[in-house]
Amino acid sequence: MYSIPKVQFRECYENNISENDMSSILIQNVLLEDRRVQVLIEGNRFREVAGELTVAVPEGAEVIDGSDYAIVPPFYNCHCHSAMTLLRGYADDMSLMDWLTKKIWPFEARLTEDDIYLGSRLAILEMIKSGTVFFADMYWKQRPTARAVEEMGVRANVCVFVIDTMDAKTLDGLFEELEQWHPMTSRLTKAIGPHSPYTCSASLLQRSAAVSEQLDIPLQIHVAETMREVQECREQHDGLSPICYLDHLGVLSKRVVAAHMVHLDENDVFIAAKRGIVSVYNPCSNMKLSSGIMPYGQMSRAGCRIALGTDGVASNNNLDMREEMKMASLLAKVQTSDPEMMPASETLRLATRNGAEAFGIDAGEIKTGKLADAVLVRLDDPAMLPLHNFTSNYVYAAGSGLIDTVICDGRILMRNRRVEGEDEIRNDIRKWKERH
Amino acid sequence: MYSIPKVQFRECYENNISENDMSSILIQNVLLEDRRVQVLIEGNRFREVAGELTVAVPEGAEVIDGSDYAIVPPFYNCHCHSAMTLLRGYADDMSLMDWLTKKIWPFEARLTEDDIYLGSRLAILEMIKSGTVFFADMYWKQRPTARAVEEMGVRANVCVFVIDTMDAKTLDGLFEELEQWHPMTSRLTKAIGPHSPYTCSASLLQRSAAVSEQLDIPLQIHVAETMREVQECREQHDGLSPICYLDHLGVLSKRVVAAHMVHLDENDVFIAAKRGIVSVYNPCSNMKLSSGIMPYGQMSRAGCRIALGTDGVASNNNLDMREEMKMASLLAKVQTSDPEMMPASETLRLATRNGAEAFGIDAGEIKTGKLADAVLVRLDDPAMLPLHNFTSNYVYAAGSGLIDTVICDGRILMRNRRVEGEDEIRNDIRKWKERH
Repeated sequence: MYSIPKVQFRECYENNISENDMSSILIQNVLLEDRRVQVLIEGNRFREVAGELTVAVPEGAEVIDGSDYAIVPPFYNCHCHSAMTLLRGYADDMSLMDWLTKKIWPFEARLTEDDIYLGSRLAILEMIKSGTVFFADMYWKQRPTARAVEEMGVRANVCVFVIDTMDAKTLDGLFEELEQWHPMTSRLTKAIGPHSPYTCSASLLQRSAAVSEQLDIPLQIHVAETMREVQECREQHDGLSPICYLDHLGVLSKRVVAAHMVHLDENDVFIAAKRGIVSVYNPCSNMKLSSGIMPYGQMSRAGCRIALGTDGVASNNNLDMREEMKMASLLAKVQTSDPEMMPASETLRLATRNGAEAFGIDAGEIKTGKLADAVLVRLDDPAMLPLHNFTSNYVYAAGSGLIDTVICDGRILMRNRRVEGEDEIRNDIRKWKERH
Repeated sequence: MYSIPKVQFRECYENNISENDMSSILIQNVLLEDRRVQVLIEGNRFREVAGELTVAVPEGAEVIDGSDYAIVPPFYNCHCHSAMTLLRGYADDMSLMDWLTKKIWPFEARLTEDDIYLGSRLAILEMIKSGTVFFADMYWKQRPTARAVEEMGVRANVCVFVIDTMDAKTLDGLFEELEQWHPMTSRLTKAIGPHSPYTCSASLLQRSAAVSEQLDIPLQIHVAETMREVQECREQHDGLSPICYLDHLGVLSKRVVAAHMVHLDENDVFIAAKRGIVSVYNPCSNMKLSSGIMPYGQMSRAGCRIALGTDGVASNNNLDMREEMKMASLLAKVQTSDPEMMPASETLRLATRNGAEAFGIDAGEIKTGKLADAVLVRLDDPAMLPLHNFTSNYVYAAGSGLIDTVICDGRILMRNRRVEGEDEIRNDIRKWKERH
């Protein structure tokens, strides 16, 4: 059993700086949208992105020939339960309640902190391999996931999870832990994560909102995922929908990141837009569990902030944001009978910049001054040819296997599709599987 | 300009035998569903698939260590316009009529036979890379595509395309060409392809059905793709839906392969099942063009024969049957609000065996005696871990980049993700793009 002494967080908070203040990377002649550029990264930011550099390249810069690649912002996965990679393929194609009560919950009840750490490492490896550098995470234990994030070089917003089934003492302990938790790196931020309006009391929801305001951290929550949730909410709370109920409690703010948001009426959409909450579209999960389809068209017209997420692999069954983009756009088109709905460039922005903005990360664009997060995409695969339009090919045609290089916070996490330590994770998972 | 003299087809018909009567391949210790097997291929068939072989392995057999792989049937893509790879990303996110009249049709009008040959080669390369060994093809010219199929080692059913905009002389010439056409290899079969009930006269549809019966070849057609098509058909043909209209004309039979089949009522589903036509589900294309959703649940309950297709890349925008499988299953689940709809194993069968059966190919199963079509899938990717259930991981989690090896008709077309001649195709496409 590993354990992280609490003091470790505090100590590191005082040294909470980028690990990459000195190194630099030059990417030459790489495709950015429809032009070729030079990209200079110094420390953890883009020093310059331009047709011709105007600043000097530092000595010792790592030089990458970008001729065969396009550079794009990486993905920011705004709703995930990373450790659930351990449940990939464990139970599928079942009705929701059978799936939860007979398979998922009994399995999860057996998971140790070590298991969660291992599942999170596998998730992060899978995300790096498919071009994702950030994820918002919600799970029973936050520390093992936080540790994996700190070690593996990605970004995350990891929440302290709370739910009514926890007793008062446990909840007090968790809120205290949240206040005292100081992540070891600027790549990691914390959040409060009340599970949902139907599993958390009004007071727990309000306590969560208060700590979110006080610490200025996100509040992650599931909202309006199923029709049943909405019906039961209306029955129990004077006809209020989940969104209206949360608004009535004063919980909604720009810090709220609400996953799913499937079953909304016009008023819900209006409130979501007015309060500036972030709604996370999870098309694969909502389709696989047959929960329904988020009203993306109405929400975008109303000015809602929307980002994209995969949800956990138990209901997806991967963390592949490229695939999620295609699913998102195509589902919105068929839902609205409008082929112009959610065009490729808007979809890419949803999966990149919108996600970074939702969590206050100064990234998601390949632009001078921004945090240096980027992926290099191979242009020579048949699915990328011919190159009439890079963004269209990337959103609609590419597989995530074309993502060759991943850079996060100015550090290369994957090059030529190799991630440091990946064999160890693979072996650990196989050994774990033999025991389960 | 290349040209194929007509006599070439006849000559080769007389020698229409497998190119692989002598070679053999042994795949050792490979995962088949949930067990490890030995797979012996001799000529173009599986000589034996078993835990332990009972027959002797021929001297000189190529031996592949299957320990790191699963073996599965490859994909059979039952509706495609292969040459349209040239239009990938050329026009997206537009209303159907603008898209067709302003972009697609003017572009296609400029394509030469050389262009179609090149586009078909790119399509076949992309299909091999994503595990597909067969496609049903419909395009303005069939010969360039047929040539690419013959050369590149895959299977196809390529139709002679007919439509009302052709004059009588052209049509006569095409029907004559169809009768005289003798493909050079058993991997290639021919079909008649009347475009649709709304673009072909009753007499052209009936003439097509007659030649399909006479030559015992498939009849490929688009049916009930859009709501507008159904409405106009009812207006023009005494209230008959497209399916009822075709049935009324006597066109429907087991040889008919009807793509799309989106807007069907109960009676249409009943007729489709009764006549034994093959309906091809094209989820990506139907979503991207926002045409609608095929009633998969009703059709499978009614006993319809159903296979899977990608359609052309102009409306997909790739030929990736793995992605199409996930899209198909998830879309059927959310459409019916039933998470048990179209489970992983059924989806895999749709994309493999059902497709082979639709076109009378004795393949689509890894089984002693069947034609030796197979793919080897890497098991070490994070998206395939842990391995609770291979089929679930393959359908819902894998990317097609995990397909390492592709075997068609007993010949290895891809190994370690390399396809013979792929660089040449890439270069030809780039040169073509510079001119367009």
